Amino acid sequence: MKIVAIIGSAFGSKSRVAVNYTINKIKEVRADAEVEIIDFSDLQFPFADGREYLQYEGEVGQALKKMMEADGLIIGTPIFQASMPGTLKNLFDMLPVNAFRNKVAGMIVTAGSEKHFLIPEQQIRPVLSYMKANLVPNYVFITDKDIIRQEIKNPDIEFRLDRFVDDFFLLLDTYQTMIQQKEAAYDF
Amino acid sequence: MKIVAIIGSAFGSKSRVAVNYTINKIKEVRADAEVEIIDFSDLQFPFADGREYLQYEGEVGQALKKMMEADGLIIGTPIFQASMPGTLKNLFDMLPVNAFRNKVAGMIVTAGSEKHFLIPEQQIRPVLSYMKANLVPNYVFITDKDIIRQEIKNPDIEFRLDRFVDDFFLLLDTYQTMIQQKEAAYDF
Amino acid sequence: MKIVAIIGSAFGSKSRVAVNYTINKIKEVRADAEVEIIDFSDLQFPFADGREYLQYEGEVGQALKKMMEADGLIIGTPIFQASMPGTLKNLFDMLPVNAFRNKVAGMIVTAGSEKHFLIPEQQIRPVLSYMKANLVPNYVFITDKDIIRQEIKNPDIEFRLDRFVDDFFLLLDTYQTMIQQKEAAYDF
Amino acid sequence: MKIVAIIGSAFGSKSRVAVNYTINKIKEVRADAEVEIIDFSDLQFPFADGREYLQYEGEVGQALKKMMEADGLIIGTPIFQASMPGTLKNLFDMLPVNAFRNKVAGMIVTAGSEKHFLIPEQQIRPVLSYMKANLVPNYVFITDKDIIRQEIKNPDIEFRLDRFVDDFFLLLDTYQTMIQQKEAAYDF
Repeated sequence: MKIVAIIGSAFGSKSRVAVNYTINKIKEVRADAEVEIIDFSDLQFPFADGREYLQYEGEVGQALKKMMEADGLIIGTPIFQASMPGTLKNLFDMLPVNAFRNKVAGMIVTAGSEKHFLIPEQQIRPVLSYMKANLVPNYVFITDKDIIRQEIKNPDIEFRLDRFVDDFFLLLDTYQTMIQQKEAAYDF
Repeated sequence: MKIVAIIGSAFGSKSRVAVNYTINKIKEVRADAEVEIIDFSDLQFPFADGREYLQYEGEVGQALKKMMEADGLIIGTPIFQASMPGTLKNLFDMLPVNAFRNKVAGMIVTAGSEKHFLIPEQQIRPVLSYMKANLVPNYVFITDKDIIRQEIKNPDIEFRLDRFVDDFFLLLDTYQTMIQQKEAAYDF
Repeated sequence: MKIVAIIGSAFGSKSRVAVNYTINKIKEVRADAEVEIIDFSDLQFPFADGREYLQYEGEVGQALKKMMEADGLIIGTPIFQASMPGTLKNLFDMLPVNAFRNKVAGMIVTAGSEKHFLIPEQQIRPVLSYMKANLVPNYVFITDKDIIRQEIKNPDIEFRLDRFVDDFFLLLDTYQTMIQQKEAAYDF
Repeated sequence: MKIVAIIGSAFGSKSRVAVNYTINKIKEVRADAEVEIIDFSDLQFPFADGREYLQYEGEVGQALKKMMEADGLIIGTPIFQASMPGTLKNLFDMLPVNAFRNKVAGMIVTAGSEKHFLIPEQQIRPVLSYMKANLVPNYVFITDKDIIRQEIKNPDIEFRLDRFVDDFFLLLDTYQTMIQQKEAAYDF
């Protein structure tokens, strides 16, 4: 079971804190999960230039290949200017149109205000859907006041991240089963 | 009257063709307009890193300052992965939240399919609105088949770009008047 | 100057309270404004059945005609199931596609939670834009706790409704001027 | 396996044609499916008035109860004024907030133009998601020219409706299994 977790901004640390908590939870409950992290503060991507993803080399090429091979994606991101950061959108631009077909994707979003609650639904979900991801219906929305000095201060957030991990794997296991059934059906 | 025209992608040429046509039209009808072009294929921006826009130097700093000083913005962009390109979103991320207050903005969008017609409305407009732009209600939506070998092949597109220029300046002139009236009112 | 104010739900009173406050403010600042109210708790519309709006008779026909003749529309509505009420959408369905061309429209929205803040932007604005309304960029968003026993309890809401009236008339006066200029231009 | 198919408009016949084709296909491939149809041209609903759904009597009360008890919903609807018809939204307004929890829902949408392709994604999906439906990722989008004199004229539409039925039941069967697993887990 290959999981890629993306931290969608090169600056700020709240999404990283939430994603790291989630990864630890995943390791706790799913021994069979291999988790890779793509963190824009560690790895700088170039701007998309129309190349196929397989033409990228080095660490960038590796990261894109891991995304394409993943069974599940966890996208942790802040909201900038009422949408996802340009860094995150640029990463999506480097991938093919149907890059997320047969993958399950879940969103963990940090924002300055409750008023931004629907931005993941309206801005990020359509892009992931277009790329054919199967989305976990609920996302975890965290306002900035819940993470202070790189620690989650609200136990309700931990509870929601735990439940998100459950929902993520329930959907992931479901789609894996569905894909296997479909493939078996095509063999006859 | 300061206009900045942005060509929202570093590759592909259809948005550039449409924006260049529009700029020529502007020069024809409005002698008082100074038009600057921001073209990602000429000028590579860094990824936003949380800095204030005034802290950027060189050509990048100049471009950001010109955007902030503009009266009107023309945003020409292709659609990538069902939204604006990461390059364009990244440029917006470098600017303050209310960067487009008191500015008029218009969109010229090129896309592969009619099915993407609502993407400017649903994905780009909310970001520009959040940044406080006053948007020209109609946008020009151009499908790829209308621009061939860097030429507009459909006279209806030219007609719509011409009308877009009219609508853009009608709104721009009106807002200028409104702003002056507001400022005059505050003086008393 | 003809204004039609719509109260978008037949039950609940918070939108009515906000709209009534707004109408009183309008009467205070604009002696030239004639304001009509369409209130679904007073007047029951039938479901749209494909007829032209001019074919409706009686009070319903009168109300549709007043909407078509209005210079400005104030749409006060609660949020039901993450969008506008069916009553309000049904009223729009009874009108032609371009019913709101050359009209200015503003939204006053009441909702149970701050999390619904973007619903007017994402669900109601696209419908009004499609019908060609020129929208006041900002809308007034009111959470239920600010209106208690049919009284506005938060002075900030009154301040925002007052400012909304200013913005509404500034845009309305602007478009009236623009329309007159356009019409004058076509005469030559 | 209880399925409710909704035909979202009282007038026009294209959605009905598409839904009827789909129901016939369902009966062909799934002997265990009981399909009920809610057709606004047969059954007139009142406007929502804040009542609980259980307080409605007669045919309307029956229809609401059937929706609440369904395992799967097929929502066939035209697009009116860039969104769903008021009749359909009003039906949703009569149901509780979480009415579609644990249900699978799929959309079949007829529209006048390819330009409306994203309206189901942007206007209808958020409402169904808010009501907790698990949505079939792809929807069938049919332009008016594909259905003439109440017949589907484009074999590609039939192919897509057939595939939609497959996708619908794959998701429905999978969710049924998931729900049973969850319930079993809570018993220990």
